[in-house]
Amino acid sequence: MNKNKQKGIKIMLYLPTRIFFGAKALDDASARLPGIGKKALIVCGKSSAEKSGVMDALLPSLRREGIAFSIFNEISENPTITRVMSGKERFIRENCDFLIGIGGGSPLDAAKAISLAAANDLQINELYDAGKQVTAYPMVAIPTTHGTGSEVTQYSVLTDIKKGKKAGFGSDLIFPYMAIIDPKYSLSLNPRISLNTSIDALSHLLEGLYSTSRNSLLYPMIFRGIALIKDNLDTCLKNPAYLP
Amino acid sequence: MNKNKQKGIKIMLYLPTRIFFGAKALDDASARLPGIGKKALIVCGKSSAEKSGVMDALLPSLRREGIAFSIFNEISENPTITRVMSGKERFIRENCDFLIGIGGGSPLDAAKAISLAAANDLQINELYDAGKQVTAYPMVAIPTTHGTGSEVTQYSVLTDIKKGKKAGFGSDLIFPYMAIIDPKYSLSLNPRISLNTSIDALSHLLEGLYSTSRNSLLYPMIFRGIALIKDNLDTCLKNPAYLP
Repeated sequence: MNKNKQKGIKIMLYLPTRIFFGAKALDDASARLPGIGKKALIVCGKSSAEKSGVMDALLPSLRREGIAFSIFNEISENPTITRVMSGKERFIRENCDFLIGIGGGSPLDAAKAISLAAANDLQINELYDAGKQVTAYPMVAIPTTHGTGSEVTQYSVLTDIKKGKKAGFGSDLIFPYMAIIDPKYSLSLNPRISLNTSIDALSHLLEGLYSTSRNSLLYPMIFRGIALIKDNLDTCLKNPAYLP
Repeated sequence: MNKNKQKGIKIMLYLPTRIFFGAKALDDASARLPGIGKKALIVCGKSSAEKSGVMDALLPSLRREGIAFSIFNEISENPTITRVMSGKERFIRENCDFLIGIGGGSPLDAAKAISLAAANDLQINELYDAGKQVTAYPMVAIPTTHGTGSEVTQYSVLTDIKKGKKAGFGSDLIFPYMAIIDPKYSLSLNPRISLNTSIDALSHLLEGLYSTSRNSLLYPMIFRGIALIKDNLDTCLKNPAYLP
């Protein structure tokens, strides 16, 4: 390893999300839900939370644990800041105290923004104001695609239609409290979305190698991720229902 | 991969410690210290914090950041619960609001226990009482050996001399807030301690492969760790001052 290259690079790792992975992920995580809050705003799209099978598994778990919920299924691709404000209103009106985001990057990113907007009573022009992001409601992330990584990051990307721009922000406050990752929830993806989100995952991995702020402590995970995509993408696209 | 073996295994990852690694670790981390507290109890042994060079680097950083401190350098190998209680008294008397543990596993484990004892006003017979561990003061961990891993775990092992037993406990509250890991702080280790702590690290890695609660998500990091020890232990013992 070239020591001069290493010396200038800042090496910092921080991932406070509790990650539950695999076929028992939702079961294992459910018992912790009462420790998070009493009523969840479920943030999702029109159909993917149903189609993926997450809703069928989650709602009985919530009832069993005595957790109330309100479903805000109005998030479409590239969530807008206006939609985030509707989510904020709903969260407050329904007396929610935590969020469950289900879906691809869009619902997860929207849930993060709703959390900040509700906790700090942000107005639409204050969503990106880091100085006003003081606290947040906890969020549970349940991904149904395999590319965004939003379930374990502090980033949220929103669209401002009036200004015609897409812009992201990051805050340590919006790391999900918990990520529930079960590969079976992505089996309903059509091959096009499956391919897109796999290439998205691959590009995140390559970014981890080529970015000027890359972190060499993570290389073993990155190499493993690249090998997994290379060895399994073909099967994933040709036989989408296959689970190893 | 054997799917039957995988299915029963609980896969959960949680590591909320902010890890700063490398030659600039202390510099990078220092700027965050004022966000943690105003006065630190520095928990260490009689000499290793000095010999390792940590004190020479840390104290100027604390002064520069305007952070007061009190040094509690009374931790020897296998810290006792009586010593933890002395640390608790010192922490409270000196009006500290966070801890900096420096050393091998003993000072780090003692700092964790002092944090819980002070925050929950625990008496000596209550140290292991999970029901009374409700809150904790934040702790910064600066390891000077390379085997314990205590800087990134929720575990603390203490010795009760009266009962003649050594016993550990775990609590999510005592994950260090921040770990500052700079390999140069372990260059002063003598070859015997260097060998012992390397074998300790290797045994943690093997435990990660053979434990019944092993987590396959971590295998890439484990394999890399084993290879690093295999390839570098000889150099480390024969040429202790070498830093790649």
